[in-house]
Amino acid sequence: MKELIERIKTDGRVLGEGVLKVDSFVTHQVDPVLMTQIGERFAECFADSNITKVVTIEASGIAPALYAAQFLGVPMVFARKSKSLTMNEELLTSEVYSFTKQITSTISISRKFLSAEDNVLIIDDFLANGQAAKGLIELCRQAGANVEGIGIVIEKSFQDGRQLLEDMGLKVVSLARIESLSNGEVSFLKEDA
Amino acid sequence: MKELIERIKTDGRVLGEGVLKVDSFVTHQVDPVLMTQIGERFAECFADSNITKVVTIEASGIAPALYAAQFLGVPMVFARKSKSLTMNEELLTSEVYSFTKQITSTISISRKFLSAEDNVLIIDDFLANGQAAKGLIELCRQAGANVEGIGIVIEKSFQDGRQLLEDMGLKVVSLARIESLSNGEVSFLKEDA
Repeated sequence: MKELIERIKTDGRVLGEGVLKVDSFVTHQVDPVLMTQIGERFAECFADSNITKVVTIEASGIAPALYAAQFLGVPMVFARKSKSLTMNEELLTSEVYSFTKQITSTISISRKFLSAEDNVLIIDDFLANGQAAKGLIELCRQAGANVEGIGIVIEKSFQDGRQLLEDMGLKVVSLARIESLSNGEVSFLKEDA
Repeated sequence: MKELIERIKTDGRVLGEGVLKVDSFVTHQVDPVLMTQIGERFAECFADSNITKVVTIEASGIAPALYAAQFLGVPMVFARKSKSLTMNEELLTSEVYSFTKQITSTISISRKFLSAEDNVLIIDDFLANGQAAKGLIELCRQAGANVEGIGIVIEKSFQDGRQLLEDMGLKVVSLARIESLSNGEVSFLKEDA
């Protein structure tokens, strides 16, 4: 996605090998204009897939997932990383290891928001090793929901997340695909959309 | 805001005294249509305030804050409740006690996203005792930014958060004001907008 790639070139920062910081427009400060374009693009890519729900994980997945859901005309559900006192009904849960934070989190979604009738588009801001997406897929499968595909804002193509998801038979759409972050430079692969 | 109040009447659930659950359209599953209307209403209420940035706190503040920012044509920044490994620059931090989760969190925003030039609209999904809003105000003040006002989706008017914020001289706009949750019933005060 041209607008996203241009923005990464302008405002992304490489912090050592493997870390791309996009906190001025995606992960901390959010640009609603770019995020609207991102959501619209995801919706175009899955327009014919009869998506009934967009699923993501807090916190930085929420913005792209919300706009994707808006353009698809369906609700968005975000998995939580910690249990709230008012989230006391039956939960779908799975474990996700975060290499960034070096912790394992239990992520959860209330069972009432996913069912066997759902056809889910999973959205996340980053795809690296695929652990967060895998955790979300696990939640959907516990509910008997079908996962139709995965929409990723920024894919670190030099890590194995995409392979993991494609090996599960899933369609993966990444709007920016990073081939390498070596020597402080961002090199891109041809993006999916 | 009529659409929000009708939705609370239809889909909100009272769990004992003081707890209103709106997880099917605000705090866990999110309705992008209603959230768009909420953001647009906040933007109307602060249209003449020269807002430069919308600030909220993860996770359920993100959706209303994002749409408010979109309609105001400014960026949105969400405070984090835990420190990420890639958030290594200078941070603005404050302490927030959550009665819902019964924990004190350190919330933080990177200093580079708030400055003395900023005129901030703070948005949150709930206002109860005002501790989260107070923490966000504290972050803004550390940066020398002006807080122009507070936009709240659902105010628990039987708690003292609004008084706390008004005593600080701040304009508070709440789209739904809950007078009471006694006997499993939601009663509303006249809303601000």
